[in-house]
Amino acid sequence: MPTLFSRIAAGEIPATIVARTSDCFAIEDINPQAPVHVLIVPLKEIPSVNSLTAEDESLVGKMVLLAREIAAQRGLQEGGYRLVFNCGPDAGQTVDHLHLHLLGGRSFGWPPG
Amino acid sequence: MPTLFSRIAAGEIPATIVARTSDCFAIEDINPQAPVHVLIVPLKEIPSVNSLTAEDESLVGKMVLLAREIAAQRGLQEGGYRLVFNCGPDAGQTVDHLHLHLLGGRSFGWPPG
Repeated sequence: MPTLFSRIAAGEIPATIVARTSDCFAIEDINPQAPVHVLIVPLKEIPSVNSLTAEDESLVGKMVLLAREIAAQRGLQEGGYRLVFNCGPDAGQTVDHLHLHLLGGRSFGWPPG
Repeated sequence: MPTLFSRIAAGEIPATIVARTSDCFAIEDINPQAPVHVLIVPLKEIPSVNSLTAEDESLVGKMVLLAREIAAQRGLQEGGYRLVFNCGPDAGQTVDHLHLHLLGGRSFGWPPG
């Protein structure tokens, strides 16, 4: 079974897709926690950070670079933003397909949840 | 001037170094926000996510892979963990040298700060 995110990438489930590259895509989070809340997702169905191998190094970097680019497009470069990978139940990971949260447009407290 | 983290890597400022690779090192956060709270830092003095370029893709991936490895060593693979990059003032970035927070050992709320 394809994951929720793979079905979104395939156009089978509607979502607001804000960027597409050869390796990744980005969508608006359906339950935003900040004025900007975008998910960066690799097309490759990697279940979580736990599943990453050395061959994914560059892909993970591309995800972070894409987040950086979207942050710049949204005018977040000066104010700042937070990037979050949730892995597993303690972190509240809800879709078993690796994704990076980009949150910005407000101040963020510490600890991060 | 070398950054705080570069001075730690050079042994000029004491810290609990928990891992070293050819590209990165990891230290215990001095103000831990969870039972496990480690910072993964590249030796290269990149100020923030904003400063990343395509040539850093692999390095960013290595940081995440090292976080994954430390999480496994600390027994966090099943329970889970959260990885956070803070960029700029809204996110509370306090040292202008890229670093990735690995937090685990408890449940994390949402939003992440």
